[in-house]
Amino acid sequence: MKKVILLRHGQSLWNLENRFTGWTDVDLTDEGREEARKAGEKMLEAGIFPEYYFTSYLKRAIHTLQIAASAMDRDWVPVKKDWHLNERHYGALQGLNKAETAKQYGDEQVHIWRRSYDVQPPALSLDDPRYPGNDTRYMHLAYDELPLTESLKDTIARVKSCWEELISPKIHLYNIVLVSAHGNSLRALAMMLLHLTPEEIMDVEIPTGSPWVFELDDHFSVLKNYYL
Amino acid sequence: MKKVILLRHGQSLWNLENRFTGWTDVDLTDEGREEARKAGEKMLEAGIFPEYYFTSYLKRAIHTLQIAASAMDRDWVPVKKDWHLNERHYGALQGLNKAETAKQYGDEQVHIWRRSYDVQPPALSLDDPRYPGNDTRYMHLAYDELPLTESLKDTIARVKSCWEELISPKIHLYNIVLVSAHGNSLRALAMMLLHLTPEEIMDVEIPTGSPWVFELDDHFSVLKNYYL
Repeated sequence: MKKVILLRHGQSLWNLENRFTGWTDVDLTDEGREEARKAGEKMLEAGIFPEYYFTSYLKRAIHTLQIAASAMDRDWVPVKKDWHLNERHYGALQGLNKAETAKQYGDEQVHIWRRSYDVQPPALSLDDPRYPGNDTRYMHLAYDELPLTESLKDTIARVKSCWEELISPKIHLYNIVLVSAHGNSLRALAMMLLHLTPEEIMDVEIPTGSPWVFELDDHFSVLKNYYL
Repeated sequence: MKKVILLRHGQSLWNLENRFTGWTDVDLTDEGREEARKAGEKMLEAGIFPEYYFTSYLKRAIHTLQIAASAMDRDWVPVKKDWHLNERHYGALQGLNKAETAKQYGDEQVHIWRRSYDVQPPALSLDDPRYPGNDTRYMHLAYDELPLTESLKDTIARVKSCWEELISPKIHLYNIVLVSAHGNSLRALAMMLLHLTPEEIMDVEIPTGSPWVFELDDHFSVLKNYYL
């Protein structure tokens, strides 16, 4: 039985500070680490042993994976880190406090940026230190791959390419694959796996630290899905 | 300037217990974790930023790498875990206390096992739980790849294949490559890089937690080597 398991990272430092995070590389809090450890224990108890790992370029997802892997005593499993699995890029909102942003732009505008499918927040300029092209880890990417901002639709498009080119082939080879990533990049995967509409996926709130298991047939149709 | 950096993991639980470890998957102590953190800080201070990581299938080397990577804020760098970089397999001695082994077999015999180039310790039997073929992470390997015991010469032969097939191509592509591994697998790499004889390599004691930097020309001749 093929399986893909989606794991959303737990509490990060900016969750505590109520700031828009996006691609900002903030670490887990102690509580976030504890969530990761428990996620690993849940897979261990369920007897679900991933044979291949995927994660993003962001340390809150990477550390979640490392801690969960360690709790399963499966540190040795191969891992592919891919920027396509990063959180949605929040453009010029990244780093801003959510309450202050609402005060500045109005509640309704912030609600639209956060909850609409295809509306992008204000874009970064190329000379902004927050622009990914100014970060050594993304410098090698083509200009048109680097986001200045993203709607959920944009995020889903790039995660889709990762699913098709990287994740699917590994499920064929390894059968049980764990993806440790972020609220919106995991939404993209769930949308594809469950054939959801944009309206449906926006209502999906993936809990943190709870492995979401999809059992797949050989054509990658979902037979069953459940949280551990 | 191309560089390969060798990093030997620090103190593990069985160092404290003075037992033959080999492929036994014991974790670092707190002191070992601290050594890893300092190793990462040394690379950071030296401005040496690895673009690709290698490590073994053993958690004391994997965790050393993860902690050092985190100290450099380079968690996102791609990593290849390969069993060829595991510590020398100590055969039926694995798990035994070194002092007790000396009492049982005599100091001279234990000295020969530990310090000769091509003498193997007693071999494991195939039904021994310590035989790698009984461990899920090695089960997919061919029978003749799985050691029952190893001399240093055997270890060097398998590390050589990893160097030629995996590490060298990555140095070409990524320029600066970090290998987090074990006393004897790193000796094998140093022997190849410095063209040492068996007698010479046995005199090399690689300190733990100290990144050993090799600067290479385009033909992989060593121009300079130094510890950080």
